[in-house]
Amino acid sequence: MVNLKPFLIGASLLAAIAGCAAAAAQDARSPYVQVAEIEIDPAQLDAYKAAVAEHAETAVRIEPGVEALYVVSDRDNPAHITVFEIYASAEAYKAHLEAPHFKKYKEVTEKMVRSLTLIKTVPIALAAKPN
Amino acid sequence: MVNLKPFLIGASLLAAIAGCAAAAAQDARSPYVQVAEIEIDPAQLDAYKAAVAEHAETAVRIEPGVEALYVVSDRDNPAHITVFEIYASAEAYKAHLEAPHFKKYKEVTEKMVRSLTLIKTVPIALAAKPN
Repeated sequence: MVNLKPFLIGASLLAAIAGCAAAAAQDARSPYVQVAEIEIDPAQLDAYKAAVAEHAETAVRIEPGVEALYVVSDRDNPAHITVFEIYASAEAYKAHLEAPHFKKYKEVTEKMVRSLTLIKTVPIALAAKPN
Repeated sequence: MVNLKPFLIGASLLAAIAGCAAAAAQDARSPYVQVAEIEIDPAQLDAYKAAVAEHAETAVRIEPGVEALYVVSDRDNPAHITVFEIYASAEAYKAHLEAPHFKKYKEVTEKMVRSLTLIKTVPIALAAKPN
């Protein structure tokens, strides 16, 4: 009788590997969405706004994987900034961190930022009108 | 000599009124952006996700003034939901609150939501790729 056990284990392993590869491919194609909560030195708020607006517009225009960078300040607490960030994938976010305009933005705003919290998220719905 | 004073006052008043009207028109045309922070009962999270996804997609598809509804959950705390909401104007947001699908969403999710904080914001940059 042929011993099928090694083959069966092999098949399970292959199935597991195929499953992982599919999951990884799925992740690579999935949007990567992050929320940044930023506290700015109020005395430097105007300069920060100019820098962050220029950065957001440049990144979305130049980088193929930066889908959207929405920057808003709380109406009741203007020095509290929220950035809602949509990248085509986790890889696109990694590439963004290496982009010259991002490095310049970090350098220019370093002394303006009092605190930064990055919240990694899982999208439930990303519903937007075609524009 | 003709007394120009009443005319001058009238002109100032007219200019002031025109200025206010322009500002109001500007506000009416400006995007209205809001961030909702929502805590969900973890036992009802799957049901909430289905309801909020259906609501977001319906609102963006049906309502002319609902530009985007991005719904995400924190990766490290899935029961914490953030909704980043972009409306064409404050009027569009008011209209949204009266829409039947919004009222249905509120009714269906009432017992799932433990807390809701709405943060009104002022946009600094709304940079997004054409899609």
